[in-house]
Amino acid sequence: MTRVDAFVTANRGRMLSELKDLLRIPSVSTDPARAADCRRAAKWIADHLRSLGCRAVKLIGSQTHPVVYAEGPRVPGRPTVLVYGHYDVQPPDPLDEWNSPPFEPTERDGNLYARGATDDKGQLFAIVKAFEAVSLGGDPPVNVRFLVEGQEETGGQVLFELTADRPELLCADVALVADGSYYAPGWPSVEVGVRGLCYAEIVVRTLEGDLHSGLYGGVAPNAHETLAFLLTALRTPGGRIRIPGFYDDVRRPRVRERDSWKRLPFSESRFKREEVRARALVGDNRYSVHERIWARPTFEVHGISGGFVGDGIKTVIPAEARAKVSLRLVPDQRADTVFRQLTKTVRAAAPKYAKVDIRLLTETDPVLIDVNHAAFRNIDQAFREVEGRGVVLTCSGGSLPILARLGEAGAAVALVGIGLPDDRLHAPNEKLSIEQFTKGVRAFARFFELMKTTTEEERS
Amino acid sequence: MTRVDAFVTANRGRMLSELKDLLRIPSVSTDPARAADCRRAAKWIADHLRSLGCRAVKLIGSQTHPVVYAEGPRVPGRPTVLVYGHYDVQPPDPLDEWNSPPFEPTERDGNLYARGATDDKGQLFAIVKAFEAVSLGGDPPVNVRFLVEGQEETGGQVLFELTADRPELLCADVALVADGSYYAPGWPSVEVGVRGLCYAEIVVRTLEGDLHSGLYGGVAPNAHETLAFLLTALRTPGGRIRIPGFYDDVRRPRVRERDSWKRLPFSESRFKREEVRARALVGDNRYSVHERIWARPTFEVHGISGGFVGDGIKTVIPAEARAKVSLRLVPDQRADTVFRQLTKTVRAAAPKYAKVDIRLLTETDPVLIDVNHAAFRNIDQAFREVEGRGVVLTCSGGSLPILARLGEAGAAVALVGIGLPDDRLHAPNEKLSIEQFTKGVRAFARFFELMKTTTEEERS
Repeated sequence: MTRVDAFVTANRGRMLSELKDLLRIPSVSTDPARAADCRRAAKWIADHLRSLGCRAVKLIGSQTHPVVYAEGPRVPGRPTVLVYGHYDVQPPDPLDEWNSPPFEPTERDGNLYARGATDDKGQLFAIVKAFEAVSLGGDPPVNVRFLVEGQEETGGQVLFELTADRPELLCADVALVADGSYYAPGWPSVEVGVRGLCYAEIVVRTLEGDLHSGLYGGVAPNAHETLAFLLTALRTPGGRIRIPGFYDDVRRPRVRERDSWKRLPFSESRFKREEVRARALVGDNRYSVHERIWARPTFEVHGISGGFVGDGIKTVIPAEARAKVSLRLVPDQRADTVFRQLTKTVRAAAPKYAKVDIRLLTETDPVLIDVNHAAFRNIDQAFREVEGRGVVLTCSGGSLPILARLGEAGAAVALVGIGLPDDRLHAPNEKLSIEQFTKGVRAFARFFELMKTTTEEERS
Repeated sequence: MTRVDAFVTANRGRMLSELKDLLRIPSVSTDPARAADCRRAAKWIADHLRSLGCRAVKLIGSQTHPVVYAEGPRVPGRPTVLVYGHYDVQPPDPLDEWNSPPFEPTERDGNLYARGATDDKGQLFAIVKAFEAVSLGGDPPVNVRFLVEGQEETGGQVLFELTADRPELLCADVALVADGSYYAPGWPSVEVGVRGLCYAEIVVRTLEGDLHSGLYGGVAPNAHETLAFLLTALRTPGGRIRIPGFYDDVRRPRVRERDSWKRLPFSESRFKREEVRARALVGDNRYSVHERIWARPTFEVHGISGGFVGDGIKTVIPAEARAKVSLRLVPDQRADTVFRQLTKTVRAAAPKYAKVDIRLLTETDPVLIDVNHAAFRNIDQAFREVEGRGVVLTCSGGSLPILARLGEAGAAVALVGIGLPDDRLHAPNEKLSIEQFTKGVRAFARFFELMKTTTEEERS
C-alpha cells in the first residue's frame, strides 16, 4: 500500500464530511438571491486551502462571486500545475424531482447526492485532497496553484477580466481542469475537444398588449404562435440547423479520432435507455452518436415564457413571447459569427407583423487541444495505476470558456474528471460515486508525483 | 325629463360609489386562492338585491362560487325578465401593465378603471340600477329574476348542474344577458351569434428528466422543440387550421347578416391601429374582418410552460413542455367533436419519441339566436330613445356557455351590453365609460317599462 492509499483509507470519512460542508452552501451563481452564498463558498475554499498550507490565498475580482487564488509551498525547479475548478453550481429546479434535498448532501448506495456533487465541487475537492495527500510531512512534489471561479455556470466575465489584467495568474506548465468525466465506469478519459456555446434570448412582440381571444381571435397576431413558427423554422425535422452559413466552418474530426471513438465501449440502445432515457435518439443520423454529441453543432430551446401559464384557463392572445435558446459550436466555428447568423436568420424569417429582438446572453468559442506534452503521458500513467486502464481520448459536448484562455497562456490543458456519465449534471438528483472520489484522490496524487520528475524539456 | 332620467341624475354619485365597492372585491374565479373573495362578491350582490326589495334571495349551488338568485316583487299577469350576469372576473396579470391597481377602482377621463369594470360587474350593475329606478314608489313594471353566477370565466359547471336540477330557475319570457357590448360609440347592438370554445392543455414529454445540453445536445429529443413543431403544424402560415374535418360543420353566415356587417361604421386601418394595436391583422383574408372575428373558427396558443425560464442562463434540454390552447367554434361545430379531432391530429403529428397528452379544460358549443320576438323590438326602442339610434345585429366572438341553456328553457335571449370596444376586457387597464353606464341604466329601465305592455301573444 502506498502512502497515498494509506492516506485515503485513513481519511475517507473526514474527506467526505468536509465535502458535504461545501455542498451544503447553495452557491447558485445564476440566481442573484444566492450571491451571499456564492461568496460564502469562495471563503470556505480559501480557508480550507489555507489550512492545507497554501500561501497567497485571496478572493479577487468580485465582491459577490470572487475568484479564489492560492499557491502551494514553493518548490524551486519543479514544474507548476495550475488547478482550475469552480465553486458555483446550477440552479436545482425542478425541486420536486429530487429524492433528497439538493443542498442536504445524502449518501445512498455508495453515492453522494447533492447539487454540485460532481459539477464541480466534488471533482475539484478530489484534487484538493490529492494535494493534501502529497503535501503531508514535507514539500509537495510540484508547485501547485489553485484558481477556483464562481461564475462558470453563468458565463460570467470576472475570471476573464482578471486574467486579462494579470496574465501571470495563469502561468503554469500544466493546467489540470477537473471538469470532465470518465467515459464509462472503468474508462478514465482526457478530453481533447470542447464545444463552444452561443446562448441567446429571442423576444417576439406582436401586439402592444394582451387581447381577449373571444373579441380578436381570428385577426390579432399571437406572439406564441409566431415564436413557435420561428423556432420550428430554425431546424429541419431531421435535426439539421437551417441557418445559412452555419455549417461552413465546421471541421470534421480527424479519422484517427473517429476511429478511436468506434473502439469505445458503447451500446447505443443502452445509452438511449439508461442514460438519455428517451424512446428514441434524434439528430442527423449520417453521423455517429459520438460525433453528434462531441463534434457536431446543435440548437436547443431551453424554455419559453409569456402569455398565461397559471392554473385554470385564460383566453388571452399573448402580446409577447420569449425563448431562451442556445447553439453548441464546434471547431472552427466562432460564437460571434454564429450569433450574427442566428440574428439575421430569425429576423428574415419573422413575419412583418412581429417585432423580434435577439439578445446574446453568453458566448464561448470551441476548443481543440493538442496532446503532445509529458503531462498527458503522466495522466495516462496515473490512471493506469489506479484503474488498471489508461485514459481514452474523447471530446466534451459542453463548453468551458476558460480552456481557450489557459491554452493561450502556454499551459498544456488537461481536461479530466472522475465523474460518471450518469451523474446527472444540471439535472435533479446529481450525484458523485464515492468510490470514484477516492480513486480520483489517488490518481491526482500520483499525477503530482509523476510530474515531479518531468524534465524541463519534456514539459515545454 | 323622465322619472328615470331624474333618478339617474340624482343618484349618479351613489351608484358609482356602490359599483366601486363591488369592484374592490378581487373575485378571480380561476384562482383557487380567491375563493373566499368570490363568495364575498356573491354575498355583496345578494345583500344589495335584498335592499332593493327582492324576495327569495339566496346563494346556491356552491360554497365558494355560489350562484346568486333573487326575485323582484311579483306583478301577476306581467311578463318575466330573467337577468343573467356574473360576478367573477379574469385574473389581473400582468400586474405591472396596469396604470392604477386592478382592484382599486379609479376614475380618469370619464372612465372607471378596474378589473371587472365592464366584464361583467359594471354591465350587470347597470341593470340592477335600472331595476331600482323602475321599482321606486311602487311595483316594478315586470317580473324580474336575477341569476348571477361566479364561474363564467372558468367554464365552471355549478350553474349548469343547478339549472339542470331546477329548470324552473330559468323560466322567463326574456333572458336579458348584459355581457355583450356596443358595436361602436353611439351604436348599441344585440348579438345574434356567439362562438363556442374548446380549451385544452397539450403536454409533451420527450425524456424522463431534464438533461444537460452540453452532454446530450445532438441526440436527446427536446420537449419544447417538439411542442413548437406540433403547434406550428396545426395552422398554415395563412391562418387556416390544419385539423382534418374541422371546417366540415362551419355554416357561413346568411347573406343578410354579411350585408348588414358591411354597413357598420368600420375602418379596418383604425381597428388595426387603435383597437388591436398591431402592425398587421392576420387570418384568412378571403373573409372580412367581421366574419373572421364573429363567424370563423380560430386556434390560439395562450401560454407555454416547462424548461428554464428564470433569470440568467441554464443549458437544460427540457423533458416536458405544456401549452394552453383553445379553438373558438362557430355554428354548427360541436365542441366535443372538435376536441376529438384536435386530439387525433396532435397525436398523429407527434414524433414517435414523444409522449403527448391532451386534456380538455372547458368546452362550450356555439349559439345562433332567433330574433323574432317582441323583446328585440323593445330593446331596439329603448336604445333608440336613449341613444338616438336603434340596435344593430352583430355577433360575438366570445363564448357564453349559459346562452344555449337559456334558449333551451324557452326564453328569448337578448345579449346586449353597454361596454365599448376599447374597454380591454381580460387585459390590463380594463375600464367602463361612466357615460355608457348611465345610458345603460336609462335604456334598461326603459326596456322594463316597454315590456310591461307586451301582450301574451307577442312574447311567445
